[in-house]
Amino acid sequence: MIAGLNQELADNFDIHIQNQALLDEAFTQASYVNEHPNQGLKFYERIEFLGDAVMQLVVSNYIFRRYPQMPQGRLTRLRAAMVNENSFASFARECHFDQYIRLGKGEEKAQARQRDSLLCDIFESFIGALYLDQGLDTVVRFVTQVVFPKLDEGRFDEFFDHKTELQELVQQHGAVDIDYRLLDEEGPDNDLAFKVAVYVNDKVLGQGTGHSKKHAEQNAARHALENLKAEE
Amino acid sequence: MIAGLNQELADNFDIHIQNQALLDEAFTQASYVNEHPNQGLKFYERIEFLGDAVMQLVVSNYIFRRYPQMPQGRLTRLRAAMVNENSFASFARECHFDQYIRLGKGEEKAQARQRDSLLCDIFESFIGALYLDQGLDTVVRFVTQVVFPKLDEGRFDEFFDHKTELQELVQQHGAVDIDYRLLDEEGPDNDLAFKVAVYVNDKVLGQGTGHSKKHAEQNAARHALENLKAEE
Repeated sequence: MIAGLNQELADNFDIHIQNQALLDEAFTQASYVNEHPNQGLKFYERIEFLGDAVMQLVVSNYIFRRYPQMPQGRLTRLRAAMVNENSFASFARECHFDQYIRLGKGEEKAQARQRDSLLCDIFESFIGALYLDQGLDTVVRFVTQVVFPKLDEGRFDEFFDHKTELQELVQQHGAVDIDYRLLDEEGPDNDLAFKVAVYVNDKVLGQGTGHSKKHAEQNAARHALENLKAEE
Repeated sequence: MIAGLNQELADNFDIHIQNQALLDEAFTQASYVNEHPNQGLKFYERIEFLGDAVMQLVVSNYIFRRYPQMPQGRLTRLRAAMVNENSFASFARECHFDQYIRLGKGEEKAQARQRDSLLCDIFESFIGALYLDQGLDTVVRFVTQVVFPKLDEGRFDEFFDHKTELQELVQQHGAVDIDYRLLDEEGPDNDLAFKVAVYVNDKVLGQGTGHSKKHAEQNAARHALENLKAEE
């Protein structure tokens, strides 16, 4: 049993793993198994294989329903922005999973515990263990707490184009005019903020600010999308 | 409504789709939507995005449980052998899905209906529609009927190495001797059949025949695996 992990899972996520061996396996690297032979230990790779597929489905299902107008190509790109080594490693760190990985001494010395590739693997293997132990609904609950809020916090904005999304949404029943207009520039020269409004067929749908016009336009488009969704 | 499809799904798979629009979408290509504007038609690509992820999970989950000793690398390769354009196109044909695709005239003329890439897409979009309409359990039931039996029929044998699997299984608790011995050659020169037995620690575990020694050994290993699983 990995001390502290069960307590954190219970306290932070209301998760209570039944099969402790499964959780141990999910947090154990091959290097640790090699250093502790004849203990019947298993390492995380098989469970990670499963967890990877579980995450693909849970994220696909969420963005499919959340963005009902988004075409396949952009869904695929958004999923790739969410389901990758970098973001999974950051989720693993936020859940403190790095503290609980069982590593061999050599790997520990080589700072594997800080390595994105390992942290990504462990996030996936945890998801696999959670799926095996508790089923898909509990995985969805966990991911809804840990991953999906990052969409609203703008974590994937680099990959995520609100202007294109707005265009797709308002043009689904035919062509409309979309126009971004600069309303104001505020602040000192070294900290300028732009204020932009987005007009759809000459009606203001949203406003946004940003330290570049591009960023202000993205925020205006996001604001317009929120307004349109609130109207639905 | 696509005539005949609902009847086939009911007769062959005991599947009764509630949301007809979803099924129509899953079988409609963009070329057909373009030829029938202003009818509010949708094409399959978004549902296919979802169906792809559903298939990845359903197949991953099945092979993870069925081959409890198989390491991650081979699980990944086996999944790739099952989840690909070629095999999905053949499943689509076996289900007669090719007959029900709604295509534009140009695509019809270009024989798109016979194209593996389209048939693969349609198989995935059907899986996506089934998931949305009926949930994961019904998808598992369908895939258990249509896809998984192909494992036993040897459809993926080219990618699937029974000798390696046998080795992994019998060596999990330490090294053992595995030996393949030629028992017999039968038949005329132009149709020779080899008969091989596999010995594990000098005990026969299985026999197999084939038109090459390699194939006979694979069949012997498969036979041994079946015997071992029957003993469990």
